[in-house]
Amino acid sequence: MPAHPLSILTEEETNIARDAVIAAHPDTVIDFRQIFLNEPPKSQLREFLALEHSGRLSPTSPRPARLALCQYDVIGADRIPSFHEALVDVALGKRVKHQVVGKEHHASLTTSEFDVLLKQCFASPLFQQALSDLKLPEGFEVVIEPWPYGGLDAADENRRYFQGLCFAQDKRSGNPDANFYSYPLPLIPVMDAHTQKIIRVDRPATGGKGDGLTAQTFNRDIIGHCTSSDYIPELLPEGTRKDLKPLDVVQPEGPSFRVTNDSLVEWQKWRFRVGFNPREGATIHDVWYDGRSVMHRLSISEMTVPYADPRPPFHRKQAFDFGDGGGGNMANNLSLGCDCLGVIKYFDAVTIEPNGKAKRLPNAICLHEQDNGIGWKHSNWRTGRAVVTRNRELVVQFIITLANYEYVFAYKFDQSGGITVETRATGILNVVNIDAGKVSDYGTVVSGGVLAQNHQHIFCVRIDPAIDGFDNSVVVEESHRVPMNAATNPNGNLYQVTKRTMERAGWLDAAPELNRTIKMVNPHKTNPISKNPVSYKFTPLATQTLLADPESVQARRAQFAQHHVWVTQHRDGELYAGGRYTLQSQQEIDGVSDAVKRGDSVDDTDVVVWHSFGITHNPRVEDWPVMPVETYQLMIRPSDFFTANPSLDVPSNKNGSSRLAESECCRKSHI
Amino acid sequence: MPAHPLSILTEEETNIARDAVIAAHPDTVIDFRQIFLNEPPKSQLREFLALEHSGRLSPTSPRPARLALCQYDVIGADRIPSFHEALVDVALGKRVKHQVVGKEHHASLTTSEFDVLLKQCFASPLFQQALSDLKLPEGFEVVIEPWPYGGLDAADENRRYFQGLCFAQDKRSGNPDANFYSYPLPLIPVMDAHTQKIIRVDRPATGGKGDGLTAQTFNRDIIGHCTSSDYIPELLPEGTRKDLKPLDVVQPEGPSFRVTNDSLVEWQKWRFRVGFNPREGATIHDVWYDGRSVMHRLSISEMTVPYADPRPPFHRKQAFDFGDGGGGNMANNLSLGCDCLGVIKYFDAVTIEPNGKAKRLPNAICLHEQDNGIGWKHSNWRTGRAVVTRNRELVVQFIITLANYEYVFAYKFDQSGGITVETRATGILNVVNIDAGKVSDYGTVVSGGVLAQNHQHIFCVRIDPAIDGFDNSVVVEESHRVPMNAATNPNGNLYQVTKRTMERAGWLDAAPELNRTIKMVNPHKTNPISKNPVSYKFTPLATQTLLADPESVQARRAQFAQHHVWVTQHRDGELYAGGRYTLQSQQEIDGVSDAVKRGDSVDDTDVVVWHSFGITHNPRVEDWPVMPVETYQLMIRPSDFFTANPSLDVPSNKNGSSRLAESECCRKSHI
Repeated sequence: MPAHPLSILTEEETNIARDAVIAAHPDTVIDFRQIFLNEPPKSQLREFLALEHSGRLSPTSPRPARLALCQYDVIGADRIPSFHEALVDVALGKRVKHQVVGKEHHASLTTSEFDVLLKQCFASPLFQQALSDLKLPEGFEVVIEPWPYGGLDAADENRRYFQGLCFAQDKRSGNPDANFYSYPLPLIPVMDAHTQKIIRVDRPATGGKGDGLTAQTFNRDIIGHCTSSDYIPELLPEGTRKDLKPLDVVQPEGPSFRVTNDSLVEWQKWRFRVGFNPREGATIHDVWYDGRSVMHRLSISEMTVPYADPRPPFHRKQAFDFGDGGGGNMANNLSLGCDCLGVIKYFDAVTIEPNGKAKRLPNAICLHEQDNGIGWKHSNWRTGRAVVTRNRELVVQFIITLANYEYVFAYKFDQSGGITVETRATGILNVVNIDAGKVSDYGTVVSGGVLAQNHQHIFCVRIDPAIDGFDNSVVVEESHRVPMNAATNPNGNLYQVTKRTMERAGWLDAAPELNRTIKMVNPHKTNPISKNPVSYKFTPLATQTLLADPESVQARRAQFAQHHVWVTQHRDGELYAGGRYTLQSQQEIDGVSDAVKRGDSVDDTDVVVWHSFGITHNPRVEDWPVMPVETYQLMIRPSDFFTANPSLDVPSNKNGSSRLAESECCRKSHI
Repeated sequence: MPAHPLSILTEEETNIARDAVIAAHPDTVIDFRQIFLNEPPKSQLREFLALEHSGRLSPTSPRPARLALCQYDVIGADRIPSFHEALVDVALGKRVKHQVVGKEHHASLTTSEFDVLLKQCFASPLFQQALSDLKLPEGFEVVIEPWPYGGLDAADENRRYFQGLCFAQDKRSGNPDANFYSYPLPLIPVMDAHTQKIIRVDRPATGGKGDGLTAQTFNRDIIGHCTSSDYIPELLPEGTRKDLKPLDVVQPEGPSFRVTNDSLVEWQKWRFRVGFNPREGATIHDVWYDGRSVMHRLSISEMTVPYADPRPPFHRKQAFDFGDGGGGNMANNLSLGCDCLGVIKYFDAVTIEPNGKAKRLPNAICLHEQDNGIGWKHSNWRTGRAVVTRNRELVVQFIITLANYEYVFAYKFDQSGGITVETRATGILNVVNIDAGKVSDYGTVVSGGVLAQNHQHIFCVRIDPAIDGFDNSVVVEESHRVPMNAATNPNGNLYQVTKRTMERAGWLDAAPELNRTIKMVNPHKTNPISKNPVSYKFTPLATQTLLADPESVQARRAQFAQHHVWVTQHRDGELYAGGRYTLQSQQEIDGVSDAVKRGDSVDDTDVVVWHSFGITHNPRVEDWPVMPVETYQLMIRPSDFFTANPSLDVPSNKNGSSRLAESECCRKSHI
């Protein structure tokens, strides 16, 4: 049986695609950036999925072509690369589409470019000279953290740049994981990626409150006022706490899920496929519950992290963590017993080496069940009979590391027909040097000489619903106060529930004061009980939108972060809220803000709903040196989709392994 | 060693209090409502706690008197009771304070009053006659659900009333837990509690959209269009699902907590006391972390559930689930293996019988540890070294049943110094009869003939902080956009963090668009690193406030539900957001809205912070017949309270019991 159209490219398929690209460019140097499955056009996919769900699929059934999207640089004679995108039909081993991407766009970065930055910095007389202006104590060495350049300034040429954030690492312990972030250096080397030259070294200010935007008052003894702040257990001065006893999740009969054909997951009436690509990380496809379609595709589309320190060049600290380098490319290799408990299924992913050859990314995604407390309960006070069920969840999780920060993403399915998309931010704050004894309006001093700048993290989740089919509408439901009046509200207790079907693509914001709820409905299917159209709904997370001035580069390139909900009509390939090419963008191009400008009909058609939410992160000292998770949950819930609580048939058996706390931990003593 | 001043009254103490009350009213009939610990005046408690924490406490140390608050009716010769409150010093066995509560207030209800309602309804010719207008099918019997009467109408005399919501139960299965809520009857008998007479039977409308406020179009065959909808496993037509495999939480070395002296809990540097009273249920006292004071008292102060169906008498459906009958009185007896997993410590509570005698309420509170995913993680991409910790939580949980609904309340402590107050709503929707085939603007038809009316659930959590001591202030922090300007914001990326210390008692609302955060600070203690005052903070949950017209009785008696955050200066006994006496109240008296009117200073003094939040619940069919939990979490987090992440020393050991999913559940198969 051939591969499923949504299965990720195998290593073999990846290598075929690579070879086809190389063959198409004889006598040329090719630098590969990414090769991954180009998901089939939706019309073809719909046809295939209809066949699959009908049970009539056979090895000879027609299938969409397996296409590899190849992004690569062709290095010309002048060493200036041009950025190409090609589609390779891996069955034919042939390039079937090809374009050179316009110079106004930049290809996503690769870690090999980071390696070049590191090498060039250390070889650069300019950088060495800047470094010699600072005096590092004995035993410290410079560490450079490569970063995307952020949005270009108006004065910048449209070249490809990288910047390096500099720190010093205490080498005296001999531990390569000593936390260098606690020793920030006020140097930012900038490299032109084409010439591979360090073109300048920015020297950011290190002043405090009242010192203005440009004061560079630091002295040579630049980290004399900094202190170590390690998180590696063996470097903790007092070690780890000793009074935490083990808590194990044991599943003696194994998990309740089944994974077949590599990516098909079945669990508790749910059925969906897990995908992966180097940009979005884990994606969820073709989600059904008990024989009914719920979602076509669910993904983390983009996130941006703009920093709010106004002192140049800190305005260039703005990452697009999915578009710039690829969330999937940065996925952790998860390990048993660390990132989740219980019985775990891991999925590998496939990425590439700079030469285009397939590289297996082991354990990029994990799948496990967890208990999330009480699912539902009712006690009949007349009889004393209580029925209580647990809320079991199935979790698809991946974790990405972006230099200092990590993000834990989870798609959680529950037995009540709900899907929760969870984001957890953790990792290490991005910090800069601040003069001894000073504090700042631009952030929080979290350690001696270490300023953690104020910033935001804004995520965008893309929801491609398929509520009992592909033709859906979006209904905005609100609850409004009604003035007391004799005719309709004699006692003033009425509130009115309003429903408005969106006609055209557009955006709207969270409005908790109106209990604004977004319903994705199938206007052709009526719930037989309530007579409402079947739907899934969510309440947009009412978090602060992007704060940067709308005319700033930070804001212009992150339009998606300026409203909570965007509704568009599906278009093939339109997956990225911040645009296809975010690296060094000056504005959002072909992102969701452009998509809505088409003004497509979004009523009774193939709609896509995008939700942006996030954290305004004014750091706490408690976020240092590694930040406790900051968690957000987008809850997508059935609303008149079913004819009763879908978890009604969850068994209410007593858990036999629970125990009473023994007397030694709970003795009656005297103070 | 004598009892701790915060320990709940023992059965013995309760009986002493009862006897003292009876002795004070010779030759009189006493109906007891509640007897529970009257927490000591804060000044005395502070003195005692200071001594306790100094380690110098001895059996002979001075202690606040153990006082029992006794609420009871004295039944006069005319059978009209008067409502009394007394304090009994249980060491002396003497009543030390006594007052007769004004007639404008009503004592909280007791379940024995409910028993009277049931008896009187069935004995009432008026009710029997109303019932005879309806024809129940063979095998059905009437069930009456006693309810508080709600807010009095202007036309009502200020008598004490109860109402009964009526249903029919299908007795044919012989199962006493057959779900009668699926057969609502349009009859509401009203009883005068003093005369114990059914004074009238209201006949609510059963119409649908367009039928107006008063249409009573129901026919005699009143439940012919209703269908059974059971939740008891043995009554489910298809039984329970068979494919859910066990998931056990095993703690081979026992729990990490220690409970001593009945109520003192120590876990992972936390130390606090668990209290309980019949009104608020479980309360948390004297919370310290690693030798530093964090909170003085934490409680669920009140909740109200107003219904929005404007058809009289449905406007009287408004419960105050803590004030009307007592959240603690309605607490479930929890059972091992049902309400939580792992190793569990249960706390018993003590309430009373109608005769005032102590009654043990076994397992009213449970305490256990749980795993909540990743606590923090960082991977060093240079070395590949990942450090990841789990987020272990300690949970104090209690569950209350209020007729049809249940609420699960949890205080959760984590290793990062955070406290989360969690509310979960579950149980059965309150429903009314609707004519066959109709739908309504006032709610959702969730089953044949069953209308679940729109309503809200608004909770109020009372936070009495003690951030490194009792004198605290409240700082409102916001993040504001700053227009681009050459002088301070040349690139437009700056946002400004503003901080305002509240000077006088008052309220404010959630403002997510400003990232409004409430900080409870100690103005005398400065974080040595950030130089900010030490604090705990929370972001108010931006949920819809009370929707009823501000002039309605529903709104006037629930002022607390009309703003998100209230800040007051502590006053002894001021614990109840909706006022001390909510039953049949027409307005909130001595609730938090009155407390703020005093205009007390709240700067650098003993402040109390109240947070109201909740659900606008426009029912889904999926909420029937038992509703999957709807969860809210109020996260109270340290903010520059510590000098680093307090969970830094949590061990990052691999969990040895996690397993790879076996090949049988994850085989490579073909579609």
